[in-house]
Amino acid sequence: MQPHKAALLRRLNRIAGQVRGISSMIEQDRYCVDILTQISAIHSALDAVSMQLLGDHTQGCVQAAIKSGNGKPAIDELLQVVRKFTR
Amino acid sequence: MQPHKAALLRRLNRIAGQVRGISSMIEQDRYCVDILTQISAIHSALDAVSMQLLGDHTQGCVQAAIKSGNGKPAIDELLQVVRKFTR
Amino acid sequence: MQPHKAALLRRLNRIAGQVRGISSMIEQDRYCVDILTQISAIHSALDAVSMQLLGDHTQGCVQAAIKSGNGKPAIDELLQVVRKFTR
Amino acid sequence: MQPHKAALLRRLNRIAGQVRGISSMIEQDRYCVDILTQISAIHSALDAVSMQLLGDHTQGCVQAAIKSGNGKPAIDELLQVVRKFTR
Repeated sequence: MQPHKAALLRRLNRIAGQVRGISSMIEQDRYCVDILTQISAIHSALDAVSMQLLGDHTQGCVQAAIKSGNGKPAIDELLQVVRKFTR
Repeated sequence: MQPHKAALLRRLNRIAGQVRGISSMIEQDRYCVDILTQISAIHSALDAVSMQLLGDHTQGCVQAAIKSGNGKPAIDELLQVVRKFTR
Repeated sequence: MQPHKAALLRRLNRIAGQVRGISSMIEQDRYCVDILTQISAIHSALDAVSMQLLGDHTQGCVQAAIKSGNGKPAIDELLQVVRKFTR
Repeated sequence: MQPHKAALLRRLNRIAGQVRGISSMIEQDRYCVDILTQISAIHSALDAVSMQLLGDHTQGCVQAAIKSGNGKPAIDELLQVVRKFTR
């Protein structure tokens, strides 16, 4: 089970609110640069969620796989998902 | 006025749905790697919105500022917001 | 002509030195995490060069194209290159 | 010892050449957009090196630390360095 479930759900709730905020800004024809600044804040908030999940996954699944002598596929999969978060 | 308002709002609606999808995945203790893959899709979807906004802003405000002989501050501001979207 | 030529060449010289530094670290079997930290510094240094070039290009070519009434293709090209620097 | 030493050194040699190529382009006042495109290729080449190092580090040091019952600090350090490569 995800060890930081409640905290992650709270963060995602906040992110959903930020996305709705972007919609309102667009509806109200707010200044583009301000909207873009807000979008960049959503990226950062999502990255914080990802880093939490990545940490939990490594401490949990990956570590367990390694201990059971089956680390290779778990590590390969981990690296593949990390690659999605690099440029 | 934002020239692609309706399309942007539809995209943001879809992004809001993707964020709620992440919450459900966490509630259901879905596999971390799958959740991270979905989060990376949200980053891409947000980037598509940002690039649309950045294009509209450049074609609109920045171009107008340059034509009125007042390009420098508009370009500086543009660059500053671009920087937020690079690593 | 590139207005910040000398400064850019100095920066690139330093970046070339940083890349050689990574090679030495690998040859000496230095700790991976330290090497990765150095690589991330090279990314930042390259980004500083890119932002300078992007600014000069916008102030120069893009602004000139807009003033001559031919802004659209210059702006499209600008946006396309910006996209390469976002994730 | 780094298991992919020779291959990594060849890659870094090529990256050093790419950096010198950027310097030449700037000296020759080449078109900014072309220079930026080349810089974005260097980022990709560096990322390939980083992913190799990150994989080797995880298969090597991190796995060994976990097997010896001392995984926590190695995983924390791994995550910290991954964070440097996300936006």
